[in-house]
Parts: sequence; C-alpha cells; structure tokens
Amino acid sequence: MAPKGFLFSTVEAAVKKPGRQDIALIVSAVEADMAGVFTTNVVKAAPVKICMKKIVSGTGQAIVVNSGNANACTGSQGTKDANEIISSVSRESGIDRSLIYIASTGVIGRPLPMDRIRQPLKTLAKDIGNATLDDAAKTIMTTDTFPKVVHKRLKIGDTGGTISGICKGAGMIAPNMATMLCFILTDFAIGKKTLSAMLKNAVNKSFNRITIDGDMSTNDTVLMMANGLAGNKPVTAKSTELAKLQKAVDEITYALAELVVKDGEGATKVVEILAKGCRSEKDAEKAAFSVANSSLVKTAIYGNDANWGRIICAVGYSGISFKEEKADIYFNNVRIVKNGLANNKDKEATEVLKSKKIRITVDLHSGKASARVLTCDLTEEYIRINAEYRT
Amino acid sequence: MAPKGFLFSTVEAAVKKPGRQDIALIVSAVEADMAGVFTTNVVKAAPVKICMKKIVSGTGQAIVVNSGNANACTGSQGTKDANEIISSVSRESGIDRSLIYIASTGVIGRPLPMDRIRQPLKTLAKDIGNATLDDAAKTIMTTDTFPKVVHKRLKIGDTGGTISGICKGAGMIAPNMATMLCFILTDFAIGKKTLSAMLKNAVNKSFNRITIDGDMSTNDTVLMMANGLAGNKPVTAKSTELAKLQKAVDEITYALAELVVKDGEGATKVVEILAKGCRSEKDAEKAAFSVANSSLVKTAIYGNDANWGRIICAVGYSGISFKEEKADIYFNNVRIVKNGLANNKDKEATEVLKSKKIRITVDLHSGKASARVLTCDLTEEYIRINAEYRT
Repeated sequence: MAPKGFLFSTVEAAVKKPGRQDIALIVSAVEADMAGVFTTNVVKAAPVKICMKKIVSGTGQAIVVNSGNANACTGSQGTKDANEIISSVSRESGIDRSLIYIASTGVIGRPLPMDRIRQPLKTLAKDIGNATLDDAAKTIMTTDTFPKVVHKRLKIGDTGGTISGICKGAGMIAPNMATMLCFILTDFAIGKKTLSAMLKNAVNKSFNRITIDGDMSTNDTVLMMANGLAGNKPVTAKSTELAKLQKAVDEITYALAELVVKDGEGATKVVEILAKGCRSEKDAEKAAFSVANSSLVKTAIYGNDANWGRIICAVGYSGISFKEEKADIYFNNVRIVKNGLANNKDKEATEVLKSKKIRITVDLHSGKASARVLTCDLTEEYIRINAEYRT
Repeated sequence: MAPKGFLFSTVEAAVKKPGRQDIALIVSAVEADMAGVFTTNVVKAAPVKICMKKIVSGTGQAIVVNSGNANACTGSQGTKDANEIISSVSRESGIDRSLIYIASTGVIGRPLPMDRIRQPLKTLAKDIGNATLDDAAKTIMTTDTFPKVVHKRLKIGDTGGTISGICKGAGMIAPNMATMLCFILTDFAIGKKTLSAMLKNAVNKSFNRITIDGDMSTNDTVLMMANGLAGNKPVTAKSTELAKLQKAVDEITYALAELVVKDGEGATKVVEILAKGCRSEKDAEKAAFSVANSSLVKTAIYGNDANWGRIICAVGYSGISFKEEKADIYFNNVRIVKNGLANNKDKEATEVLKSKKIRITVDLHSGKASARVLTCDLTEEYIRINAEYRT
C-alpha cells in the first residue's frame, strides 16, 4: 500500500522499557523533496532543532524516529545523542548525514539511553525492508491505543500514485501543532516550494485545528517526503493538478487528525466544534477553540449533559465580541439555543450526546466566517493515564 | 465578628432543590460606599448587568443573592426577574431600589423559578438579623464543600474596625475574575474613589491570580461595602493609613482566593506557581498561568509525579521568550531543574508532591519581574462533579 520506493525497518531498543519495537527507519530509495512543520513551543526537543536546520535544503532520504523518550530538555547531550543516531544510520545505510532526519516522542527531560540504543541501531539500516509502514506506525506509538495510518491513491495527469501518512497523537495535543509526530510519504513528484506550501496548508486545516488538552508539545514534527518515483511531471504552483493534489493531502492530514482526536487520552467521543456566522476566520477560530478547550464543556459532553450554558460561556470569554441574543447553538441538528435562550430541546440534545461522534455548532449570526475544531471529551481515564504516565 | 451595622438573613426558596437556605440578604443599617468588580465575559448574567449600572453611583445599602441558578442567558425575562427580586426586597425593607444590589450563582440558561421564590422572598427583609455572616456564606455555596469566611480587625488611626469577606468558588474559576461571588464588608469609612481603587488592586493580586479549570464565569461579582460606622476619618488617597488598609483588604481577598483554590472541584492539593526572573510582570503572569492551566501538569501533581518536563513545556508555549538553558525549577526548595536540565532530585521532589500545599518556582533568570498564581491539581473527582452537575 505504501508509495513506491519507500522502505521501512524497526528494531527493539528498550528506550523506555523492553518488549516492543521502539525505533523505526523510513528510507526512500532515491533522494526526495522534503517539507516540514514543527512545534512553535519555545522549548524544542533536540531532534526538532536538528530537523529545522536540515529542512532548509528541502531534500532528504531517511527519517529515524524513536518512541519512549522525547530527547527534549536534554541540553547539548541531547543534540550529541541525536547526531550520533544520525551518524550511525548514515554509516550503516550509506545515506549522507545531511539527508537523514530524526524525531523522538516520549518523556521529556531524560537523556536517551544510548547504551541500550547503540547496538540495535546497527541492524536498523541493514534490515531495511523488514517492516511495513504499519509497523512503523506501531513503533512510534506512546499512549496511543491504535496505530494511525491513512492511504490515498489518485492520478496526477495520467500517472497513478500514492500518498500515505502515519502519525502518533494521544495527549499534549494543542493547536500549533496538534500531533506530536506525523510522516507523509508520496511517490508523486512535487516541486520543493509547492511541497512546502502544500504541507503548511494541510496542517493549518487539520493538525492545527484539533485539541485534546490544550497542551502544546516540545516535539511536534510533521515531515513530508515526495520521491517522484510515480513518474509524473512535477507538480508546481502553476500545475492544473495542484488543487487536486492539495485536496488529497488535506484529506490525509484531516483523517489523521481525526484519528488522533478519536484516540485522545481517555476520550470516549469525538466532538466537532463548528463556529459560524463570525466576523472573521480568526474570531471563528478563537470561539471554536475556546469551547473545544473548556474542561467544563468536555466533562459535560462526557456526562451526556446538554449543558449549553458552558458553551456560550466559553464563547463569551474567547476574546471575541458578539451579541448573546443572536447566538444559536446546535447539537448535530438539534437547535438547543435560539437567540441566546434555551429552546427546550434538552431531551433531544441529550440523545445526540449519547453518540460517539458529535457536532456542536455555534452560530453567532454576526458575519460569514467559520472555523471547525476537533476535540474529545474529558474523562476520569485522562486523569488516570496522565497521573501515572511516568510511573 | 461581622463589622458594625451589617445584618443578615437567609431563606429557603428551593431555587435548585429544597432542603437548604438558598437566598441571602446583606443589609447595612446605613447607606454605605460601595465598589464592585465584575466578570469580563462577554456573556454576562442579568444580575451582573444590573449591578454594573448601579455601581456607578458608588453607594448601596443591601445585597440580595441566590445560589442554585445563575440567571445567565435568560434574556429579558432574566432582567425582569432580577428587578422583581430587588423590588420585593425594597418593598419589604423600605430601602430604595437603587441601593439594592443583586447576585446569582448556579446553572446557566434556566429562568429563575420565580413561583417558588416570591413567597419566601417576602420574609427575607422582615427576618433581617435571623442569620449570621457565616449563614450567608453557606447560603451562596454551590459545589463548594465548605463556606468561605475571613475576618480582619485593625485600627485606622485610633479607631478599631473590622473587614469581613465571604465568597463562593469551586469550579469555573479563571483569571478575570476568579471567584464567582465575593462580598467584602467593612465598618471603616473609605472615600468612594479610594474604595474602588482599593478593591481593584486587591482583586488583581488575588482573585485574578487563581485558576481552577481555566473557565471564566458569566456571573463573577465582587462587591465591597464600607458603611463608616467604625467612626474613623474617611480614608482617602491622601491618608497616611491608606497602605495599611490596602494591605488588610489584600490579605482578605488573598485568603479568600486561597480558600477557593483549596476547595477547587475535586482538588486534593493547593499549588502555588511562582514565575520569577522574568522580563516583565506580564511575562511572569503568562508563564505562571500557562503552567497553572496545564491539564498535564495538574494531573501529574495529583499523581505525585515530579514530571517537570510538562512544566517547562507549558512555559515554552506560554507566548513569552526565554532561554531554556537558563531555566531553573523548584518544588518547594528542591531544585529539580538546573539550567534547563534534570538535576537528579526526582526522589526529593516526589516527597514534596505528597504534601497538601506545594510551591512550584520557575526561575527564568532573564529579568527581575515575578508573578504568583494559585491553582489546584486535576483529579477524577473534578470529572465526576462536572459530568453530573446538572443531573
């Protein structure tokens, strides 16, 4: 299912604990064009800092990634360790250091256990092809309960090709960015600049529009590789096929983002917050995120309580101005609030809340802009997972 | 213990459900100077809107307050109901309508049950003196587990007097403002302008510096009444005793704010976040609030997990700039992070986390400004309380 020319291997290095594959290598048979989007947190993990420098070239051939340790807040040792991993992969694979990217996810503030990593690392490049993209997706999981893989086949001109994406999510998910790690691979040829713009567009409408707990990670990394082996004429800003390709990439990232929310720590429901009738998209985003991040809203949804007062309250402190008496709120198609007042639909709205996927629409009737944010409910299980994460 | 000339009564009106006193009346024997601070939420409850108009006069004589229903998002009916309550109290007490303030707390979006309120309301003013300040504090509780009352006696010049404060808190507690309802009463004479400035100063360093869940209420109201019956020369901006009085009011509001956090929904621990070494007070506030509002930090504290990575991560996405490699983090006096790196004090820090009151200090070593924010841990009990609040 993976795009042409991409190969995978995984290895067990007991980064956090033994018993699972925890380092993965993604290799393209040929040098690929490459784009990346990274966390905006001031505190950036060592691999993020390294990738941000490499991505300027717009080319790459491999990504090595570990779960179990974020290699964040690890100072110069962290940078040294990440570079040692890159050198090891380079030595064993023959790929130039400059073309090897690196990503990590897991606990912050602990040095990588290099004594446990060095030996298995040696076999990683040699064993390339011993694993599938699905295996790689499993390898990067932390508190995720299922691997996240999405494929899409389409034609660009007469040339068929594939776009595949994997990611890991779960907790510490907030806008800019939302997922901790995501890798998108395609065999289509895409111009460097176009690839970079395409990825940014896709991320803005997907990973930057989801929130689990409002925390933004130190390690968020989205990398996209386009190796051109499908043989199409490279897609550029002038291509008639640009919109079609952008749509496909958008769908990949949105599907992955939805999987991340579905697998939010402790989540039992996926909730889409649609803010519409806003004066600007910025306003709509603020309103939607304010509702999506409200602990009170999220616990009410968990408890099947159609407590719309908490929703309008969250819009009220979002920092935008609007007229309360114009606001409508819907749970799916049930209008629970009409002109800012209770519409006596509590019973119907409670029924809606019992489903696993819910859309809450806030229509402020003060403009034409809208924004959609995905979130999940907040449950006791979230507390349990995060109270015990390191123990 | 209450200041001279303040009388109280309470009544049971089954606003939410029967079995408890749920409307309280606070009356000063004489007209008092009055100041108020209110929620900055765009969505304001009817009583808040009414009080914001009244407070312009700077005078008042009574406050009528109910729990069990917020009278928020209730449209023109909400305003009508609140005014009917004021009229009823005015009729029975002989106090002019303009001098009667009103506050509500409880569920949003449901009209007040006026049919149940009207009858008991008639006895409220007649029975003035049938209750104490402590009774009033109990009456305004919602999910609070204990009433919050603080007194302070001091001398202004040669004149002894009292400042008392009550408040209710629990959930939906965020900066600007933090408490839902707070009433401060004093028999000292304080000039109108001075009283207003004094209250704002006190609130800024107390109720505006606490957070339970990052949600900001539609009903937050702090009212302060100074009836002058202690007989001191009125305190004004020029008084030598101004600083002393401000300090006393600051202590009252800070003590109440601390009680609110202690009683945060589901909280087992009070956590003080001190951000220091910041470039500006604004930066320090951002850093401290970002940590205090992080669900991941709060659950880790609950789980006795000295997971400092989540703390530095939260500072990292707070929107301020700083050098990670200069940051120190302390749990009480245990320096768990030194120059941005683990300081191998996990065991000692874990011990600190086992206490009921914890101070986390983040020192960024990039300036001289600091800010202190109070918060609590996030527990399964918070979820339970809020998932079932309306049922």
